Amino acid sequence: MYRHLARMENMSFDNFYAIIPAGGVGTRLWPLSRKDHPKFLFDLLGQGQSMIQGTFRRLAAICGSDHIVVSTGAPHVEAVREQLPELASDAVFAEPLPRDSTAAIALATAVLARRHGDHIVVGSFAADHVIRDEDAFTTSVRQAVAAAEAGYVTTIGIAASRPSTAFGYIHQGRSLASEITGAPDARLVTEFVEKPDAVTAQAYLATGEYRWNAGMFVMRADTLLGCLKSYKPDLYSAIMDIAQAWDTNPESRQAALNEYWAGIEKIAFDYAVAEPLAAAGGVAVVPGGFGWDDIGDFNSIAALLPSSNRQNIKILGEADLVSYIDSAGDVVVPAAGRTIALLGVDDLVVVDTPDALLIAPRARSQDVKTMVSKLSGDGQDDIL
Amino acid sequence: MYRHLARMENMSFDNFYAIIPAGGVGTRLWPLSRKDHPKFLFDLLGQGQSMIQGTFRRLAAICGSDHIVVSTGAPHVEAVREQLPELASDAVFAEPLPRDSTAAIALATAVLARRHGDHIVVGSFAADHVIRDEDAFTTSVRQAVAAAEAGYVTTIGIAASRPSTAFGYIHQGRSLASEITGAPDARLVTEFVEKPDAVTAQAYLATGEYRWNAGMFVMRADTLLGCLKSYKPDLYSAIMDIAQAWDTNPESRQAALNEYWAGIEKIAFDYAVAEPLAAAGGVAVVPGGFGWDDIGDFNSIAALLPSSNRQNIKILGEADLVSYIDSAGDVVVPAAGRTIALLGVDDLVVVDTPDALLIAPRARSQDVKTMVSKLSGDGQDDIL
Repeated sequence: MYRHLARMENMSFDNFYAIIPAGGVGTRLWPLSRKDHPKFLFDLLGQGQSMIQGTFRRLAAICGSDHIVVSTGAPHVEAVREQLPELASDAVFAEPLPRDSTAAIALATAVLARRHGDHIVVGSFAADHVIRDEDAFTTSVRQAVAAAEAGYVTTIGIAASRPSTAFGYIHQGRSLASEITGAPDARLVTEFVEKPDAVTAQAYLATGEYRWNAGMFVMRADTLLGCLKSYKPDLYSAIMDIAQAWDTNPESRQAALNEYWAGIEKIAFDYAVAEPLAAAGGVAVVPGGFGWDDIGDFNSIAALLPSSNRQNIKILGEADLVSYIDSAGDVVVPAAGRTIALLGVDDLVVVDTPDALLIAPRARSQDVKTMVSKLSGDGQDDIL
Repeated sequence: MYRHLARMENMSFDNFYAIIPAGGVGTRLWPLSRKDHPKFLFDLLGQGQSMIQGTFRRLAAICGSDHIVVSTGAPHVEAVREQLPELASDAVFAEPLPRDSTAAIALATAVLARRHGDHIVVGSFAADHVIRDEDAFTTSVRQAVAAAEAGYVTTIGIAASRPSTAFGYIHQGRSLASEITGAPDARLVTEFVEKPDAVTAQAYLATGEYRWNAGMFVMRADTLLGCLKSYKPDLYSAIMDIAQAWDTNPESRQAALNEYWAGIEKIAFDYAVAEPLAAAGGVAVVPGGFGWDDIGDFNSIAALLPSSNRQNIKILGEADLVSYIDSAGDVVVPAAGRTIALLGVDDLVVVDTPDALLIAPRARSQDVKTMVSKLSGDGQDDIL
């Protein structure tokens, strides 16, 4: 084991490029997160940096900021560039329309492969994840890169610390340690399973064979492009045509986008690549034990925010704006600069923004999505 | 009985003057009601008129708008005049400092007595009460005026429809019908009792001898001033000196106020006059069966607002601003123009104003006062 680690630490990340797909509105974080200002642009943990800034900084420590690209919706390009001034001018992929993660990862990979050769390893890391132990994260990425070099599409499987029903799971098979240099903890993925119910989740945990799927994938560019060519030939062909035009001139790029982008299949990377390839024995998993979370809703924000008062009222923002009597366990986002007075209310989510106020029990955090649908149905898109 | 009524209806109100003491911040209605914009200035029932406008209009129908005066704090004079343009220029009594109801009623009475003679009858009616049946109210006032003419300080006792612990009670004694022409339902008051606990309130109701004390008092000016002279000679003397200067010139009025007002005892009319005089057999009560309420807190607003949705969510303001899913029985005041989204919350009070937001269960409505104290203690007087 120590020998392995020593060898791993000598591995360089020179051949590694990180892709940050920054999509998704974060509907369950409404009214904080909005269509035109999605959750990855917010400092959701009150740490003085937005989620995408944290993601970028963490990856830059591994592969350098010149090895990172961001893929995001055209409306968010300006905000992303503002928050990440280190990003090179050619490091932002602006999507004219959302086309889900397969298209985003494929386009960035195809363009990077044209720039740096298809022997490069790319890794995709969502812009809005929380990672606590950055050294452990680096170790995981290092092993994932090694497994990717060996030809596997490699995912980082998160230690499942509770029977969560909010995440998909990865079922681990036999060890790949003997086959792959530098990835002593790599295992074959036998299958990806969808978000389970609580009983199933508990059963998964009991086996010790399951990890959470955080959607982090590391792979050689040629591995991925080869997969796509066989699993999703239309998508592959459209992406390759766009990639060919990408670095020529703005007009050709735009023409290619105009011709192909809207017609590209909207499909998540898990469905298009990870699941079928796992069935074919082509996916590896390395363990991620770095303390991970996906801030999906206000309840998860509450769990991650530090407790600064005895009532365990979590405040994302200026604590002085919140006054409380006989209240506990509330999650308060005072984002409108107003005083919020809580009298005798427990475990509520209160999100106060200049044009919309949300009040819900923490237990209903996931259903904020339903409220957004209702408001959309009522024609209130101006506040969504 | 019919004979009585016929005689009563012939009685005129030419000799009757109404005093509206418009004081009290309405702390339990914060953050809607504020120090500088108290509750009587609001349309708390969504009826297109403020509480004081409703009070004024109701009294004007009885005695004419030129027989009404308003006593209020100096900071509110402008708002009162704006809301009640019919008020004559000499019909507003501006109090430099709050000195409770005895001083307010006494000063207005003393000045009116100087203007119109001390044989007039004055009646004091709070600016923020809800009265439903205005014909029944007129009938009660008519009987009260008759009892006042006969020399009694006369209160209108509200039919106690439930064992409320929020109001004081009036214990009724023998009928005065045979002594007083035009007040067939008048009875002697044996005593005033403070807000009881629930068990006591229930016991009061069971006897049939108790009515709620709504603080409405009708009496001859000379009766009241005589009482004050004997019960509260210092207050009486200060008030009489101010009253003497009142209609001379602004400088003399101001000089008298400067000299006496701050030193006047702060005492409620019930304590200073009604209770001791009742003990001496000088107080009468006539029944008020007109549907009365005192809007003390958001819970009482909820009870009085019409229900416009099946979830019984009561909205004071623009209903379109409130969106709800799986929520019921809430009281919402959308006074900041923002959308309020309620997801899975029952029986909450949500008061949304531009600079402060209150969230509390309806059951804690009375404790809003405590929140205001806390905010005041925290130095947040700018939002109180």
